[in-house]
Amino acid sequence: MSPMASPESVRRHNLSLLLRLLHQSGALSRSEMGSALGMTRSTIGELVADLRARGLVEEGDPARLGSPGRPSMVARPNPEGAAAITAEIAVNSLSAAVVGLGGRILHRARVTHQPRRLAVDQTIEDVGKLIQTAQASIPAGCWVAGLGIALAGVVRRADGMVHFAPNLGWRDVPLGRLVAERLGSSLPVLIANEADLGALAEHTWGAGVGVHHLVYVSSEVGVGGGLVIDGRPLVGAAGCAGEVGHFQVNPRGERCRCGAIGCWETEIGGPAIVRRIGIAEKNYRPEAVTRLLREATWGDPAALAAVEDVGHWLGSGLAGLVNVFNPQRVVLGGLLATMWPVVDQIVQAELRARVMAPAIDVEELIRPTQLGADGPLLGAAELALTRVLDEPTLVPARTHERRSA
Amino acid sequence: MSPMASPESVRRHNLSLLLRLLHQSGALSRSEMGSALGMTRSTIGELVADLRARGLVEEGDPARLGSPGRPSMVARPNPEGAAAITAEIAVNSLSAAVVGLGGRILHRARVTHQPRRLAVDQTIEDVGKLIQTAQASIPAGCWVAGLGIALAGVVRRADGMVHFAPNLGWRDVPLGRLVAERLGSSLPVLIANEADLGALAEHTWGAGVGVHHLVYVSSEVGVGGGLVIDGRPLVGAAGCAGEVGHFQVNPRGERCRCGAIGCWETEIGGPAIVRRIGIAEKNYRPEAVTRLLREATWGDPAALAAVEDVGHWLGSGLAGLVNVFNPQRVVLGGLLATMWPVVDQIVQAELRARVMAPAIDVEELIRPTQLGADGPLLGAAELALTRVLDEPTLVPARTHERRSA
Repeated sequence: MSPMASPESVRRHNLSLLLRLLHQSGALSRSEMGSALGMTRSTIGELVADLRARGLVEEGDPARLGSPGRPSMVARPNPEGAAAITAEIAVNSLSAAVVGLGGRILHRARVTHQPRRLAVDQTIEDVGKLIQTAQASIPAGCWVAGLGIALAGVVRRADGMVHFAPNLGWRDVPLGRLVAERLGSSLPVLIANEADLGALAEHTWGAGVGVHHLVYVSSEVGVGGGLVIDGRPLVGAAGCAGEVGHFQVNPRGERCRCGAIGCWETEIGGPAIVRRIGIAEKNYRPEAVTRLLREATWGDPAALAAVEDVGHWLGSGLAGLVNVFNPQRVVLGGLLATMWPVVDQIVQAELRARVMAPAIDVEELIRPTQLGADGPLLGAAELALTRVLDEPTLVPARTHERRSA
Repeated sequence: MSPMASPESVRRHNLSLLLRLLHQSGALSRSEMGSALGMTRSTIGELVADLRARGLVEEGDPARLGSPGRPSMVARPNPEGAAAITAEIAVNSLSAAVVGLGGRILHRARVTHQPRRLAVDQTIEDVGKLIQTAQASIPAGCWVAGLGIALAGVVRRADGMVHFAPNLGWRDVPLGRLVAERLGSSLPVLIANEADLGALAEHTWGAGVGVHHLVYVSSEVGVGGGLVIDGRPLVGAAGCAGEVGHFQVNPRGERCRCGAIGCWETEIGGPAIVRRIGIAEKNYRPEAVTRLLREATWGDPAALAAVEDVGHWLGSGLAGLVNVFNPQRVVLGGLLATMWPVVDQIVQAELRARVMAPAIDVEELIRPTQLGADGPLLGAAELALTRVLDEPTLVPARTHERRSA
């Protein structure tokens, strides 16, 4: 607690509060901003003018800014004022995007391939090309906060070292350094686990907005998790927290790609889902899961039995996480979100049987993702945009904007 | 961020910082206090004088204050200056204690009984007597911060409602209100889960001092857990977080007292440990576990096999928690601490096989409790003492102390 905060540092702090508010909420009137932040209209007016001069905020007629029906002038974040480049290295796709303030996706490219272990060099080459194309699409005058990368693996955030990505087949890959070398740029590169970033994105813009205690679980080939505790991401001592897919749930189960037996991933990961209808792991394709779900919906007995079994494993594992974290909301991503409408009853019944805490409305507790496959890219953007959200004065005022103000 | 903190509020904040430092660290010299808090010697001197006047701190010769070998005057918390009454309602014991500042236990009584479901009325009567005896032992002039109660169950902290305590056989018991009525006093009554409080105590004075990310797991009849994340207790949305004993680890396992099948508790709880040598749950006694461990140490094959099996289940579950929380330290309490020297190798091997995060030294990661059976009582004291640690000026200055100052 410092009793001597200077007027200048207070002002910078307030600029940050306001920009973050608009970034999360979209268009707001001055009185909405004032009541959200406990500031007077004149203070809000000065702060908005400052952020406008830097090109970070637009202000005007609600209809013009896509917020019709509002009574007065609104301000909104300017997605072309500051943006992040983001990329995702997943087991069956590579993506890159440009995400502007407010979480607006300005550009996106995704290349899917069959799930396979990826050669590090080729992946960096491929994702580097996607990133460069994304970078070239950035509008002139847009301030670029950095490059955020989401990856299905255990990552040390401090330097982007990928310790272990069993489903990519990677161990101890200095991805941060390799990507920076490939791009030859001085952009900050920030790398984190894709489920952690999915959780961050859902918390900022998706099914977890306003939730202080959030559990996010996502499944593609592997199963990842991200946690928000008291409004803050759980990162753990070395930034490796959230690996929920590797609880041993079935001591007589299958060997996991992590090397252990019977991890949760071996029961609810994509290959595990379709193993139940006789599809060998090496022949796994994500489309097989959607086909299975369709057949279950039609009432095919084998498909129904498979889906029910997965539902039980999903429910008992989620109940364990709910007992440990006592969350307000559980958000499901990836294949788990796709499956949700088919398994919701089974999962809810498992939770009713297993959750210790009282007064949990299991029908309200669990929600599928609202951001879909974009979640990790948006979370990676949030990671990179934090710089400008924390310190908007990093972005210089624009001369022509000043003149017109 | 307030730019207008008054000198008075800064001073109160600094008094709180200093009292908390001494409470956690014990005797310190003025220069040690100054460097820990970034304050000048003269500020420290003024703050110590204020806390002395309130009877919260003693200052003097290191030898006299039990800190011989130090070069200069030291200050230490005065355990008789402010204290908490604490109680523990466990499956096989009731306890009460008086704990003074600095975590010094001034009085303690424990009544053990065979594990059994407890009648609520009788328990409140019995623990009420222990609490009144404790209260009567409090030295004259000691400021009593409140009554903290540790309980083996799921508790809503706000009002001390016990939602579910399967091993006591309790559901929806308004313990806070009942205890206050029994005592007829206006003391604040604060109730929390005993493992949460064990974690808090280990973090304050025990095997988790200085650890920002701590997992605490304790077993008696049931298995409880407490987490510290980024230096703060994980309480969850309704204060019910930390129920680590109810992950489903064995789908073909035993029925748990919570009603579900195959919870971790059904493999590593006290009755589960000795079930392996043929002792039925209804005949369970804690001493059977110590006897089993002794026999295993002597090399008895049946005992060894039982202990090894428990070690594997303990290790795989701890690995799951380490993957989720990425802690710096795991502290084991209760029977798990007793077992630790016999199962440490097995547990460490499970962690090596299952933990995803790199650079975790599994031999350094896990520690048995340093506070033993006192942990929950000390944690309950911490809960109650928070009032005076946050606001030392609640305790009025003592007239005679002022005169001698």
